[in-house]
This record gives sequence, C-alpha cells and structure tokens, in this order.
Amino acid sequence: MSATIHRVFNFNPGPAAIPLEVLQQAQSELLDYRGTGMSVMEISHRSKEFEAIIQGAEADLRELLGIPPNYKVMFLQGGASLQFAMIPMNFRPTGGSADYIVTGTWSKTAAKEAAKLGSNHLAANMESEGFNDLPSKLDLDPKAAYLHFTSNETIHGVEFTTEPEPPTGVPLICDASSDFISRPVEVSKYALIYAGAQKNAGPAGVVIVIAREDLLERVPANLPAFLDYKAMASSGSLHNTPPCYSIYISALVFKWAKQLGGLPAVQKRNQEKAELVYKTIDESGGFYRGHAKPGARSMMNIPFRLPNEQLEEAFAAESKKSGLIGLKGHRSVGGMRASLYNALDIKASQALTDFMREFQKKNG
Amino acid sequence: MSATIHRVFNFNPGPAAIPLEVLQQAQSELLDYRGTGMSVMEISHRSKEFEAIIQGAEADLRELLGIPPNYKVMFLQGGASLQFAMIPMNFRPTGGSADYIVTGTWSKTAAKEAAKLGSNHLAANMESEGFNDLPSKLDLDPKAAYLHFTSNETIHGVEFTTEPEPPTGVPLICDASSDFISRPVEVSKYALIYAGAQKNAGPAGVVIVIAREDLLERVPANLPAFLDYKAMASSGSLHNTPPCYSIYISALVFKWAKQLGGLPAVQKRNQEKAELVYKTIDESGGFYRGHAKPGARSMMNIPFRLPNEQLEEAFAAESKKSGLIGLKGHRSVGGMRASLYNALDIKASQALTDFMREFQKKNG
Repeated sequence: MSATIHRVFNFNPGPAAIPLEVLQQAQSELLDYRGTGMSVMEISHRSKEFEAIIQGAEADLRELLGIPPNYKVMFLQGGASLQFAMIPMNFRPTGGSADYIVTGTWSKTAAKEAAKLGSNHLAANMESEGFNDLPSKLDLDPKAAYLHFTSNETIHGVEFTTEPEPPTGVPLICDASSDFISRPVEVSKYALIYAGAQKNAGPAGVVIVIAREDLLERVPANLPAFLDYKAMASSGSLHNTPPCYSIYISALVFKWAKQLGGLPAVQKRNQEKAELVYKTIDESGGFYRGHAKPGARSMMNIPFRLPNEQLEEAFAAESKKSGLIGLKGHRSVGGMRASLYNALDIKASQALTDFMREFQKKNG
Repeated sequence: MSATIHRVFNFNPGPAAIPLEVLQQAQSELLDYRGTGMSVMEISHRSKEFEAIIQGAEADLRELLGIPPNYKVMFLQGGASLQFAMIPMNFRPTGGSADYIVTGTWSKTAAKEAAKLGSNHLAANMESEGFNDLPSKLDLDPKAAYLHFTSNETIHGVEFTTEPEPPTGVPLICDASSDFISRPVEVSKYALIYAGAQKNAGPAGVVIVIAREDLLERVPANLPAFLDYKAMASSGSLHNTPPCYSIYISALVFKWAKQLGGLPAVQKRNQEKAELVYKTIDESGGFYRGHAKPGARSMMNIPFRLPNEQLEEAFAAESKKSGLIGLKGHRSVGGMRASLYNALDIKASQALTDFMREFQKKNG
C-alpha cells in the first residue's frame, strides 16, 4: 500500500465522511477478519464472530448515549424512509391520529408518508417561512398516538437543541438521522429514536432504532415480521440476515467515538467546527448568508447563499478543485451547504473558512 | 500487506463466500475510490461515481441474465423477508388470492407472511414429506393474483430446474435468493424475480428485484414509497439512500461472473462442484445420506446426514479444524450442509470430498 493516501475534505451531506482510522481498520481486516480466514461480509450472521460485532456495537452505543436498560436497540434496514412507514404501522391504532412537527424536507416527508396510512395532525408547519426556523409554539393533540419531530433537518439546516414537550402520555418519536451521536441527549425523554447511519454513524444500509420497551407493547398483531418492531427487537435484530458489513463499520465508528472521549468530546469538536463556519458567514458583511435563523442553526449542516448564482457556481467549482468536496447545496434551497459530521475534524472547517475568506476577497 | 493471506474453504449458507478477487479490489480502493479521495461508503448516492457503479451493476446483470428491456432492475433493502410482505402489498388486490408452492422453510415463510395480509392458496405443500422433494403436480387457481415459488430451498436443498407453469395470465414470481445467477434462466418466463444478494451476488444488505413493467402497473396508489415497487423502479433505486457499499460489491461480483465466462461457465463450474459431493454421498454405501431425493437435488446447498449425531458432531468439529468452514446443517434438518455458491471453485469441493472419504475411512 502506498505511504501517502489521497484523501479530500469531505463535506458530503450523506452518505458522508467516515473516520480514516475506521476505514484503515476495515481495510486491514477485509480479507481475513481476525484470523477467521474470511471477510466480515462472508461470515454467518449467527456466528460467534458476528454476534460479538453486533453485541459490541449495541454495548458501545448504549455507553455513548447512556441508553437506559428499558430501551431496546435495533439495527434495521430501509433507512429513515422505511421508518416513516413503520412508525404509524406499529404505533398509530386504527382510527387514531399522530402529531407531526414539520420543520423541513425530512419531517414533511415523514408526515406525508404517515398520512398515506391514516390520520395526521401537524403540530407545527414551518414551510411558509421557507423552513428557516423552529416553531415558537406547538398545537398539540393530547390524544395523539405519538408526537414526531426531526431533530436536525439535513437540507434546511435547522436543529432542535431541546426536545419538544409532548402532552403527558404521548410518546415522543424522533428522526435523529443527521445529528445522531453528534452530542449527548437524554434518551429517557424519547419513546423512540431512529437514525439512518450514513451521516454520523457508519455507511448507508443500516438504520438504528432505540425504542422504549413499553412502546413495543403497542405493536399490533399480524404485521409482516420485517415491519414489526417487536419481532425485530426480540430477535436481537437477527430475525433475518441483517446488513452485516454496515453494522460492522458502525461498530468501529462507535468505538472511535468512545476513544475520542465520548459524546461530550464529540459535541465540543462539532461546536468548534460549526462556530468557525458561522463566524465566517456572520463576519462576511452579507456576502455569505446562512439559510437558518441564528436561533435554529444546525451544528451539522450549514446551508448558505452567495450574492448571486454565478458566484455560487464559481464557489462550487473552485472549492471542488481545492479538494473541498460536497459543498453544492440541495436544489430545494440552492447555494452551498457544508455538512460537518462527526468524522470531520477542525482542519476541515479551517480549510473551508480559509477558502471562504479567500473567495470573498477575490469576488466580494 | 502480507504476501500470504489466510483464507479458508467457506461453505457458509449465507452470508457466504465472495470471490477473493472482488475482496482484493475492494480492499485496494477502500480509502480512495479511483482518485476521488473518498471511500465508496463516503460518496453521495447521487454522485456521478455512484451512478456509474449502480448503472454498471444493472448493465452487467442485464447482460449476465439476458434480462429483456421490458423488465426493471432494482437494488432494494430488507432482504427476501421484506419482499415477502411487499409482493402481496403490491400485487394481490383487496379480496384477491395468491398461489404459493411450498417446498421448504423459505417458501413456507413467504406464504405465512403473505397470509398475514390477505388470502393465500397453497398450490402444493411438501412439508408432510419433510421437504425432500419437488411437487409432482400443482393445484393452481386460474384466478390467482400470482403464483409464487422458491427456486432453491437453502435449508432443505431442493431446487427447481424448470419453472412451474402458472395458468395463462397468472404472473410467476420467484424467490431466487439462493440460486440467483448460478445458471442461466429464461427471465421472460417470470413476472418478477427477487434475490437477497448474500449467497451468490454480494454481501447482505441488498436485495435485487427484476420486474416486468406491466406487473408494476398493478401497484396500488398510496403505498409508502419504500414499499412501492413502482416508486422504487421509477427512481432507479434512488428514491432514498440505497445500500451503496453492498451494491458496489455486487457490481464487482457481476463483473467477476462475466469474466468467468458468464452464466453458462458459472453453471458448468457449479455442476462440477455439486457432482463431486453427490458422487461421494452416493458412493458412501449409506454412510452419508442426502436429504433431498435425487430428482430434486440442489446444485447450491447439499444437506446430508451421517449414521448418528455423535458422528455428525465429530464431522463438524474436525472439518472446521481442517479449514472447511460452515458445514454444520440447519437445526431444522440437522446433520451437515455444504453450500457451494458461485464464489467457491472446484478446489473447495475437492477438499470437502477428500475430507468426507477420509472421515468415513476412519469412522465408517
């Protein structure tokens, strides 16, 4: 293997950067996983080696997030998109209604998918403001089957830093796909947290679900097993063949986050990275304009605009040439977007903000 | 990297062996995929690099199987297990009934899952014979929404070598998970073929679906998008983030199969491997007893028994020590099972049959 590895600053919104140490370990054991003479891709999901991987992943995640013992941890498939359907199938009884807080593309999609299968009520909808802020108040149904929110909107860059409070007895359900394990959270406030791994927690192909056991008692009989949280939880995510290799990479990512110092250290690092970029935006005299209002700013995804589309195109092209990858914004917001997930270190933010200042000097 | 790689003979039933050349290529580009400075795990599913991967995978699979242009190819998640639910959700209208041919654990499970969601009729059920044979006749419903069968039963080792014939107008649907791309098939006989990749076609985490376009017109409105074949097909499997890395490995496996000479060459190699093992069983004078009747024998999975359970345990332990991995049979059949998927070459069968003869000599 060559001594110098070509690696870029990867600001992709997801699938996104994975810690180099994780990839290096995966590479070193790709042909022979710890003396088995097989790749992790080639071993049975019921082997003792894979059991150690999935149980180790769960134990490390429990430690990272401080998951209480009355919660189940599952490693499933289908991304957040399948969760959008499974949540109402499992937890909204026939004739019942569920509350959704809509703060961006992803929570809107979650609500839309759930509405295909039954009744929803929007506790808030920030679309008319262009999804640039969090709701200041919620219109909550005290009889809702659950209250769903999206803790971080990947496309619009708005993030909840405290949880919305549901009425007593209404379970709180969170799509945490794009800020999962980016900071400590109090899991006991939630009935269920789900997160596609491909932002902070591994590669695409595995979605992590953390569910309080009493919620699982609401699962109706006769759901297809793959769509039944109770069946998946009681099998230890081994009802059928799980996405073994993705789970293995996630397990390595959890170990890496622990070695970094756990979620308080991860959060500090993420704050420093985001502050550098927001500071550069705020000190640009309006050359760079953040999409989200300051009180709603995401620590993970920072969408921003430039004075005009020609400059945005030039920024996209020149940043890419400089080895800063994935900065083109989502078509629905336009402009640029910097995604600063866990795997990026401060050097990525420094390289980006250096580039931003230089670009403004030349074009401002 | 060390010059000698420790690799075993891998008879795992799935997840199963992957060609060494595929793993070596994956290893060499794991930190930097073809000059991008990123792993395939780290690139956007909407990047031109990933588009080339998924479109290349589809093109190579179309070439391997001779898939006609009026069929869509999808790379989905959830394994065969989620397909068990999606098929009736998409293709069995309310009040309709579907026909299932039950020849082993997997077709039985497919029928059971579909029965949770509506009406089924068993066109054949071989359970009373211990799932050791194919049905000699079928009780077919001419009004069935579709006829479902499992071309190869991984656990019981029975395999269809010709397709069952549904009544005119009844679509034929096949779970081909464990003999997919092991031999040429005439795709035009099928309305839909699905296969979890983790036997012949890649790692766990991706399921391949080949569906005739006119069948997709039957998909009802308002299914959740992830469960809607039409939505998945029309997005080119990119409705949401696909299992990118698994698809990439499958793409490499398809290229490898093409280089081997395509499916006629793959089939010839598979026949030679299976014949060696069946010959050893048949010439053992009853020491080894195959589970399946000769006319139903699988080319992929060969479950067999020894004279007693002590000998079976000794066989399992000693074969493992000799570097022959994954030979313990499924608990529902007992005994041993040799899975001889595409990635194994003739040397694996030779090593196994040498061991079998030696073991019989010592213990027979």
